[in-house]
Amino acid sequence: MQNFTYSIPTTILFGRGQIQNLGAQMRALGSRVLLCYGGSIKKSGLYQQVLEQLQQAGIAVTELAGIEPNPRIESVKRGVELCRAGDIQAVLAVGGGSVIDCAKVVAAGVSYPGDTWDIVLDATKIVHVLPVASVLTLAATGSEMDCGAVITNLQTHEKLGTHHPDMRPKFSVLDPTYTYTVSKWQTACGTADIMSHILESYFTGVQGAFVQARFCEGLLRSCIHYGPIALAQPDDYEARANLMWTSSLAINNLLSYGAEVAWSVHAMEHELSAFYDITHGAGLAILTPTWMEHVLRSGRADALAVYGTEVWGIDRDLPQADIARMAIDNTRRFFKEDLGLPGTLGEVGIDGSRLEEMAHKAAPLLATGTFVPLRYEDILAIYRASL
Amino acid sequence: MQNFTYSIPTTILFGRGQIQNLGAQMRALGSRVLLCYGGSIKKSGLYQQVLEQLQQAGIAVTELAGIEPNPRIESVKRGVELCRAGDIQAVLAVGGGSVIDCAKVVAAGVSYPGDTWDIVLDATKIVHVLPVASVLTLAATGSEMDCGAVITNLQTHEKLGTHHPDMRPKFSVLDPTYTYTVSKWQTACGTADIMSHILESYFTGVQGAFVQARFCEGLLRSCIHYGPIALAQPDDYEARANLMWTSSLAINNLLSYGAEVAWSVHAMEHELSAFYDITHGAGLAILTPTWMEHVLRSGRADALAVYGTEVWGIDRDLPQADIARMAIDNTRRFFKEDLGLPGTLGEVGIDGSRLEEMAHKAAPLLATGTFVPLRYEDILAIYRASL
Repeated sequence: MQNFTYSIPTTILFGRGQIQNLGAQMRALGSRVLLCYGGSIKKSGLYQQVLEQLQQAGIAVTELAGIEPNPRIESVKRGVELCRAGDIQAVLAVGGGSVIDCAKVVAAGVSYPGDTWDIVLDATKIVHVLPVASVLTLAATGSEMDCGAVITNLQTHEKLGTHHPDMRPKFSVLDPTYTYTVSKWQTACGTADIMSHILESYFTGVQGAFVQARFCEGLLRSCIHYGPIALAQPDDYEARANLMWTSSLAINNLLSYGAEVAWSVHAMEHELSAFYDITHGAGLAILTPTWMEHVLRSGRADALAVYGTEVWGIDRDLPQADIARMAIDNTRRFFKEDLGLPGTLGEVGIDGSRLEEMAHKAAPLLATGTFVPLRYEDILAIYRASL
Repeated sequence: MQNFTYSIPTTILFGRGQIQNLGAQMRALGSRVLLCYGGSIKKSGLYQQVLEQLQQAGIAVTELAGIEPNPRIESVKRGVELCRAGDIQAVLAVGGGSVIDCAKVVAAGVSYPGDTWDIVLDATKIVHVLPVASVLTLAATGSEMDCGAVITNLQTHEKLGTHHPDMRPKFSVLDPTYTYTVSKWQTACGTADIMSHILESYFTGVQGAFVQARFCEGLLRSCIHYGPIALAQPDDYEARANLMWTSSLAINNLLSYGAEVAWSVHAMEHELSAFYDITHGAGLAILTPTWMEHVLRSGRADALAVYGTEVWGIDRDLPQADIARMAIDNTRRFFKEDLGLPGTLGEVGIDGSRLEEMAHKAAPLLATGTFVPLRYEDILAIYRASL
């Protein structure tokens, strides 16, 4: 196990009706708040509830509305200007990961004098972050409890992550009932995203990270168990609750502390989303099994076999290579059949024309520290095998 | 899953050499510090390292030495007086759970005007707690990351827990190498204590706490895997590291949030320690399998069977009752044969003479909310079956 400094100070208000604590919690962070959201919370009625809570707490609200999926740097810049103009003290995101990510970089951008895109390209330029909080409406990115944010620049075809300890939300409201109305597609993509976060930590070269590995397996099993239930029965509270709590624990550093590894599939997927604006979780579901085949070819059947027995319950007495093969097949089948996600790039409208370009962009981000090496030609082969 | 408010703000400095950060971390909490310890840190050399760190950081140190296992209220009172006399700003515990527990109640007692035993009997009387930090030398109680403390009053034969959110340490240094010199006996007792903490959360009546249950199983497997390794090879870093991190995660609320249940075995064991001053972990190892037999008699073979398949890898295709029986046998055998702990009360010098008295004391503490009911006669039967 590696040395680590554990610090996860986010307060999580989990469960039905926790919105009633929003006003008091938010007031402790500031009396002038930027409220960030996409569009759906106006339809669901959550917008009104949030506004009432903030108003009852005597908070002056400025709104940044219309934040898009794969949030754009233009939205972030709009938020930064609003914060400066309104002397905003804290930022509240109400929505899924895109809204929260946007809110985080707004909060970090206010005190940065240069072009806000700079702090996405180089997180070390972040000097001060306004307090951030969230009300979560989608179990997926884990942004509600982590330090990271992913922002898209469509002009430069870049989708990049930035992070800072102070971007971790001070508190997040996690009410599983808010996800009852999440579409089947978004539920499936969210579940694939959660699973990918876990897998990125699980496949580590660090020896002796036993506790972390067992936690990864538990959370993967939560996704495998409850993902299909949430699809079949969108208002199953336990399914939505476990998926939501799993989304937060998957990426809040609990799994990675002591077992740090450079991520593999996310960087490859971010190129797909940056070039084609596809849904992140769908891209992950397509690339993950193909990446696992690369892991197998790279001689790590051992790690895939542990994954197979502990997560999928495959018989330990089978030959290691068979278990590894079955684990990959189970993963592909789960994404495609149980979650109903696309299995190939062709199904999301991506052809072979720009694979080299994307592989060139991804390669430098994957140059060191991944579980198995991912050179340009490996990445290109994974893209091609995913067509 | 139940509603919960997650808040675990303790910073953990984990790994070899983390003591080098002690001075700076402590200085942020205060410049006049009460240093609490037992005796062993003077032998190991840790005392000198700690003192150097504090002195280099310009901290004035007052010492509370000689804190005993099953810490006594008299030691707490001595610490409270020292804090008042020295206008102490923060409390640093260097040791195992007994030292940390004592330090916590000292920190809570300073501002309490009445008899300090009052705040053990009634945690709601705690109004203000000095900041607490710890350097851990024993993987067992989890006090380094939780809100609780257990204090013994030998005059009244009471060993009782108290808790307050502000008693959770601000930071704890967890260097697994400090546990290399822990004796086989203490290593075994610590492992049993950790396992009991996990089991107390694992056997819950709350439905749908899937994530919590899988985490419990992962941590139990860590104890089962690494406990015997640490006994056989006391300086095995990965064994000591996993046991240490498991001790903290077992009881820091991660497992209990959303799955709250009143604990069973701890309250029964506390009577043994209060009457006979035996080592807590040994008492837990004796009572746990006997309590599980009571669980089985109470009709909860289902829960024991999940425990059996997921923790002990027992074949799922066997009849439920057989799996449950085997799970209990495995538990008893593990404590006795793999950890070398006593299997009966007789082995720790407890005879049948005071069982009724202890059962009378334990019964009110177990009156509501336990996994299966524990009336006076149930407790007495468990004690008797453990003789």
